[in-house]
Parts: sequence; C-alpha cells; structure tokens
Amino acid sequence: MKIERIPLRGRREDVTLTTYVLDDSAELLDGAARPAVLILPGGGYLSCSDREGEPIAMAFASLGYHAFVLRYSVYGESDWSKPIEPRERSQYPRPLVDVGLAMREIRERAGEWRVDVDRVAVCGFSAGGHNAAMYATNWDKPVITDAVGEGLRPAALIAAYAVTDYVDVVERAGEMADRERTMRLAIATAYLGTSAPSQEALIAASPALIADESTPPSFLWSTAGDTLVPARHSMRLAARLADLGVPYELHVYEQGRHGLSLATQATAGSHGDLEPRPADWLRQAASWLEARFALDVPALSHWER
Amino acid sequence: MKIERIPLRGRREDVTLTTYVLDDSAELLDGAARPAVLILPGGGYLSCSDREGEPIAMAFASLGYHAFVLRYSVYGESDWSKPIEPRERSQYPRPLVDVGLAMREIRERAGEWRVDVDRVAVCGFSAGGHNAAMYATNWDKPVITDAVGEGLRPAALIAAYAVTDYVDVVERAGEMADRERTMRLAIATAYLGTSAPSQEALIAASPALIADESTPPSFLWSTAGDTLVPARHSMRLAARLADLGVPYELHVYEQGRHGLSLATQATAGSHGDLEPRPADWLRQAASWLEARFALDVPALSHWER
Repeated sequence: MKIERIPLRGRREDVTLTTYVLDDSAELLDGAARPAVLILPGGGYLSCSDREGEPIAMAFASLGYHAFVLRYSVYGESDWSKPIEPRERSQYPRPLVDVGLAMREIRERAGEWRVDVDRVAVCGFSAGGHNAAMYATNWDKPVITDAVGEGLRPAALIAAYAVTDYVDVVERAGEMADRERTMRLAIATAYLGTSAPSQEALIAASPALIADESTPPSFLWSTAGDTLVPARHSMRLAARLADLGVPYELHVYEQGRHGLSLATQATAGSHGDLEPRPADWLRQAASWLEARFALDVPALSHWER
Repeated sequence: MKIERIPLRGRREDVTLTTYVLDDSAELLDGAARPAVLILPGGGYLSCSDREGEPIAMAFASLGYHAFVLRYSVYGESDWSKPIEPRERSQYPRPLVDVGLAMREIRERAGEWRVDVDRVAVCGFSAGGHNAAMYATNWDKPVITDAVGEGLRPAALIAAYAVTDYVDVVERAGEMADRERTMRLAIATAYLGTSAPSQEALIAASPALIADESTPPSFLWSTAGDTLVPARHSMRLAARLADLGVPYELHVYEQGRHGLSLATQATAGSHGDLEPRPADWLRQAASWLEARFALDVPALSHWER
C-alpha cells in the first residue's frame, strides 16, 4: 500500500489528499487498473473528522478499491457550540473546488496509481456528504470547470447523513433546540459566510435543488434518529433523482444519532456511535457499488490456463 | 496509516514484517493501544501469496485493529507442479522462528505503534495457517524460547484451510490425484527437507497432534470442497482443542476450492476464487474476535461530557 499526503493548495497544510493505493500483484489484477473511492469526512465545514477519514479508507480498500481521503477547506474550529464569525477560507466554492483539485490529481496520476478514472466514486459524510453531493451536481458546471479545467465525472455518489438542502438548514433552524440551532447556524456561516444568506446562495448550495441528468448514480443513507441533519435531507435528494431518472438507492435506518460513520468500534468516538443496524450500510453500499465497480478478475489464473 | 517493511533476518530481503499501523486520533481511541493481527500468507512453504497478505491486512484494519503481514522463510519457488530438491532456507523450524521474531518486533515497538501486546492474534492461510498454528502451539516451547527469548503469547489463532497434520500430508498423499500428490510432497520437502520424513519429525510439525492447554482460543475454517488440504485438518485441530477445553470455533463451508482467501473480488486470482458462502468467514471471524478484541471505546466523548 502506498500512503502519500499530497498538498493540493500550495503551501497550505490543511488541504491535502491522502492516498491509500493498493499494491499491484501478478497474483491479483496483474497491472489492471482498479476503481477508487474519494472520501470526504464531515465536520460541519468547521473541521474534518478523523472518524470519517482513514477508517472509511480501510473499509473501501478491504473491498479491493483504491481509497483517497480529502481534507478540504474548513473553518478551522471544532467547537460547534458557539456562534462564529465568517472567515473566507471555508466559504463556497472553496471546499467544492478542493474536490475538483483532488479529482484532477487522481486523473493526472492514474497511470502511476493504476486507477480506473472512469470508475471513481465520491463518498462523503455529513458536511463531507454535502461537499460530495455538490461535486456530483457541479462537476460539469463553471464553478468547477472554470477553476480546474474539465471536471472528472464521478462514477457514483455515496452520501451518509448528508446536508443536501441549505434552505432547510437555515429556514428550519428555528425549530431546533438551542444547541442544535447554534450548530446549524455555525455550519451556514462557515460555508456561506453569513448566518442569513440570500435565497440564491442557499439554492446554489443545495444538491437536492440543483441535481440534474448529469448527476451520477447515488447511494444515500441516514437515520430516522438524526436530529442535527434530519433524514429528509437524504430523502429530498433521492426524490429529485427519482424525478430525473438517475439511479439511486436510499436507506433510512430507524435507530441512530447523527455522525455514526461505520457505526462500529472502528469509528466510534463513544458508545453512542455503536449501532448494529445502521452498521449494515457498508455492506449495502459495497454490494450496490460492486455492480458498477466489479474488479477485472480474470476467468482463469496463469496457473489454471 | 504507517506502512513500514522491516527485515527480520539482517540483510535477507525475503523475511520481512510489513506494518499497517492505524493513525491515532483524539476523536477515536485518543492514544489507547489497539489489538493487532499478525497475518501469515500461504503458499505451501514454497512462496508467500500476495492474495493472503495486504488484502487481509485491509480486512482487519477495517475492523479497527492494527495489522502486520509476515513474509516468512520459504523455498522460493512458485511452481508446485514438479518435485523439488531440499533446501535449508524453508525448513523447520525457520518459518516458525520467523513468527517468533515478528512477535518480538511487535512487542519491542508496541509503545510506538500503540499495540496492546496482550491482544495480538496470529492469522494464517494454508501453509501460513500451519505456521500460525505452529506458533500457537509452540510459543512457550524451547523451539521458540531458545531462539527469540520469551515468546509473546498469541491471544488468538485464526487459521484458514490450514495444514494441521503432517502425518496426514505424507501418509495420505498416495490417495490423491497425480498433480495434488506432487504438490503435497513438495510441501513436505520444503518444510521437512525430505518427502519421506521420520514419524517424529511429522508429529513435531503437526499442531493437531501437539496442541496443549497453552494453545490460545482458535477460529478455524475450511471448505468441504478443498481437495488439496482437506477440511479434516481443521476438524482434527478443533477436536483436539475440544478435548483440551480450549475455546474454539469451526466453520466448514460446503462449496469452494483450496485457497479462497476472502473469497471476494478483493482477493480473487480468478473466477474460481469467488464464492459467496465461504466469503461469510470474515464476518464470523470478526464477530468472534470482537468478543476478545473489543476496542476501548469511551462511554462518552469529550464532546458529550
């Protein structure tokens, strides 16, 4: 396995692509390219969570895919419990353009890493799920193509308890308990530069409102127990994809709070992150993905010919 | 993740320990040690198969455990289809002592790698399963302690379609088809230096005949369809552990040939290595192991306190 941490914005140390590139072997794919998964951790655009980085890379690498973890532009604060002042660094479209930079890097080094560039999925969690969905709905739009040149089409989107509708984030913050309302408004401020953005800005930041025919097949999951980013975010994106005829799959598990990651001990920050039923999502996603990302396993090995 | 390839026998490049050490994070175990799995690929003591190395490390790393892959002393030939001349390098007890060297290295660097040395499992496949079982039954015996000092007790053995009984390997070779008989005798020659070893040598090389009360809890699996190393090898070790009162678990799946590894696309060398039902073994092993190797997940995170 080749681990490399690549800075994507010059000297800035916070925007990096970490590679988890599987070794080649004559006994396995013998030089053939593998599909890959680009992973975007969550953290409300305030930080990037380790709980949704390397452990997710391990999960996809164990399925035979190269994995990459992108730490995109964030506010740089992990205390969500207080109001924040706007900073430029985490504002739209920076975190989205970072995904474009990561995809460009993967395409440019695909030969060296043996990546099948036609089969690169983006997979994000919470705000990372939003960022992944933003890339999935903007990869061929000027916000990406003006910044990084021709965008690499993601072959699939995998989004976990993702924010998909910023109109909802801001408009319905009033319904929430104090602490969650403060968190929501911090997320809006970090990404949109104000806790009271224009309607136009909110729509441009809402994959559930802007997805179109060029959005790739999508696997969405959430939990009914999520009070910070309610499952309706995933359902709204799913409904739009259904209207568009874009293939999608949606799983909403009854139990479980926001931010479960794998929902196993491999990613648990505390006991509340251990939830056996939602932990099923990875198996479902693996099976869904394998239909599109089957490896080029030879019919017969050298030995059998 | 920290990848390092460590030579265990001075300048020899063939005996190496490759680390897959998970990153620490304040959001996860926050400095607490993790259990680890030492992986021994198979290959009939003629070679070490890539199909049972890094992909297995990924599988255990995805469960939250550090993983290590040991390439132990082998004959250095991957064509099993012809008789071979004895060479010293792959002969008992060298490959076994290599496991002792690997365990010593893990113990010595446990602080740096944050390994819980009381919870290190050995996990092997085919000949690697034999080697793992040999370590599990010899870790406190002179063959190890004379060579490497106090042996590190493995907390568990995981052995896949392992050779456990060399008496059987040699005595019943006559029952086999030509090609498999040649392979069996090559395996005996590589490990014991002759295709007609003494009964004493055969017994010393048979975990199913020498396991005792200090053998750790064991998870064994095989397939009824395995004609090279029949499932009775796993059953014999299981029966001895049952007699001894050592905890064990045994799964013999009906379908599947020898050498399935994960039985998924992640490890398939050809279509014959894809077997959905035996692919269940990893989930079973993970659940069995988690009862002993539960991570020290805090009841409440910093955030929740």
